[in-house]
Amino acid sequence: MSNALTTYSSSDLREFSTQVFLHFGISRQDAEQAADVLSLADLRGIDSHGMARLHTYFDMLTLGRINPKPNILIIRDKKSLCTVDGDNGLGLIVGPKANEIAMDKAEAHGSGWVSVCNTNHFGIASYYSLKALERDMIGWSMTNTTKLVAPIWGAERMLGTNPISIAFPGLNNPPIVIDFATSAAAYGKIEIALRKGAPVPKGWTINHQGDMTTDPNDMINGGALLPLGSERELGGHKGYALAAMVDILTSVLSGANWGPFAPPFALRQEIPSRSVGKGIGHFFGAMQIDGFMEVDEFKKRIDEWIEVFRNTKPTKGQKAVLIPGDPEHAEEAIRRKSGIPLIQAVVDDLKDISKQTGIPFPDQQ
Amino acid sequence: MSNALTTYSSSDLREFSTQVFLHFGISRQDAEQAADVLSLADLRGIDSHGMARLHTYFDMLTLGRINPKPNILIIRDKKSLCTVDGDNGLGLIVGPKANEIAMDKAEAHGSGWVSVCNTNHFGIASYYSLKALERDMIGWSMTNTTKLVAPIWGAERMLGTNPISIAFPGLNNPPIVIDFATSAAAYGKIEIALRKGAPVPKGWTINHQGDMTTDPNDMINGGALLPLGSERELGGHKGYALAAMVDILTSVLSGANWGPFAPPFALRQEIPSRSVGKGIGHFFGAMQIDGFMEVDEFKKRIDEWIEVFRNTKPTKGQKAVLIPGDPEHAEEAIRRKSGIPLIQAVVDDLKDISKQTGIPFPDQQ
Repeated sequence: MSNALTTYSSSDLREFSTQVFLHFGISRQDAEQAADVLSLADLRGIDSHGMARLHTYFDMLTLGRINPKPNILIIRDKKSLCTVDGDNGLGLIVGPKANEIAMDKAEAHGSGWVSVCNTNHFGIASYYSLKALERDMIGWSMTNTTKLVAPIWGAERMLGTNPISIAFPGLNNPPIVIDFATSAAAYGKIEIALRKGAPVPKGWTINHQGDMTTDPNDMINGGALLPLGSERELGGHKGYALAAMVDILTSVLSGANWGPFAPPFALRQEIPSRSVGKGIGHFFGAMQIDGFMEVDEFKKRIDEWIEVFRNTKPTKGQKAVLIPGDPEHAEEAIRRKSGIPLIQAVVDDLKDISKQTGIPFPDQQ
Repeated sequence: MSNALTTYSSSDLREFSTQVFLHFGISRQDAEQAADVLSLADLRGIDSHGMARLHTYFDMLTLGRINPKPNILIIRDKKSLCTVDGDNGLGLIVGPKANEIAMDKAEAHGSGWVSVCNTNHFGIASYYSLKALERDMIGWSMTNTTKLVAPIWGAERMLGTNPISIAFPGLNNPPIVIDFATSAAAYGKIEIALRKGAPVPKGWTINHQGDMTTDPNDMINGGALLPLGSERELGGHKGYALAAMVDILTSVLSGANWGPFAPPFALRQEIPSRSVGKGIGHFFGAMQIDGFMEVDEFKKRIDEWIEVFRNTKPTKGQKAVLIPGDPEHAEEAIRRKSGIPLIQAVVDDLKDISKQTGIPFPDQQ
């Protein structure tokens, strides 16, 4: 396997994604929206959620497993709350629309909260929370995902990695952007260890009997990821509770498939034995800052929070304590200038799409 | 130290607490409210937050550090949102009132969200989320607390154990009640290890240089607790982000003291070098279930969720996977019949209050 990186212009990649979505009859506005979500993932250095996923969306659209022209509807509505049915559209299209509804509701009612069913994977959770900052709101987003994680004391996959994001704006400092999966480690890290033939740290995975294991094969072959906290003694029941919270807000509350019944994202994943609802689920929230405090006063207080936490006495060997969102912010500053580095496997995937569709793949930068 | 337990009637203890609060000129309604919060902690087996804390509240009231007759005011209000100033009242009085405001707002606007400053420790977080269930709402509560936890890569205490609670009602099953501190372990567990002269598990604590330690003395002497996830590799940055989220929603947003500036709960704790706001902060939320889905349909879906998760294949040596709130629910069923067991140190504390105030301490059951 080659670890070589090839760098592409962010706008070239975005245009390529847009063309791929247009190829399936998706409207221009929706295609550009979907490409924008993927593009931000790559800009922020969340490589697993950007161009690396385009082939999976391509496959699902090719097979007709995702509806390219969804009729996204509010199916229940009550002031600051509503439920949205995504009509089995791309999460990259349903998510932004439902998030917009949450923000519009916040404009009208101070806050807005939208639970979404009948949708698909929506990209990076922080795409949505960051949008709220443009309107002086605090943004929340969550989604459930295909099962990979065992509850504490369980020996099988029952929950997704169910990420949570929330973002708070600073005045002169970049925003605080919280965005994390509720598992101890991302699945992608298990795959990397597998390819390297390396063990994983104790606390990431169990085998099919529920025993902790450091062999990535054990997890892949019927084992599971552990929730944040890893084991009971270190608070693993808290990570499990957090994943459960996300599952319920996104999917029990919206009428989507919850827990082990969430449909798979990729073709190679097993299809659940039962359906208990429609698609997967998301949850979006927006709160107007000025419902609590003057916006500038809040932003100044966030700036001060950031500065105080940056000045925490560091542990030996570390330069400084980071603020949530710092690594992504730093990466974005670099990549906006110098482009998006892609590994060869992703480039091959994209060239395959190009070959199948006739959409030209851009030259490297 | 004696480990013997003496059992008291729950209503006798509640009456004793009520009398102690009345002793300071607190109104009957507020005194009964405060006693109710402590009582529920003991009933649910969260011993650290019930009668065990009465002497601390007693000390703070005796010294005039807490206002017994607060004028609790909404200082900013916008539809589903508001900020409440607790006038330095007992958190056990300010919390229930602010939570009531969140639920009343939810009645009017679908959801209600209240950030609270100028308050004090509010007891168990799940007291508040459980209240929302009585009104067919989903309840949220959070609070910041005195600094004890280091951010990842930090070598000093910067955040409280900042708990989060959220509760979801079942139809025939008891509710799912999520309530956890965002640290890997509770401070009380360090104190227990210290008294026993026993080590703590790796992952709970660091010493004053930021090195992981299993000696509880190292944490007490200028060290810190670790956030949920314990170390970077196991996702400790996620627990830190979660504690930061709670700190910001409760205290940056309300105008309270955030992070390392949260004032101490107990007399023996160090007073922060700076004040950046008023008191500590809470955050309450309530969402009407029927804004998303028919209430009974949601409760049936929760029942099914509970049953599916209870039937997870368990790991070796475990009978079954638990649902968040199960242990407390089981304990409450027992204690409502057989009373509240108290350790001798707590009984001594309560008898001391009795001696100082002349309020008779009840006989054991």
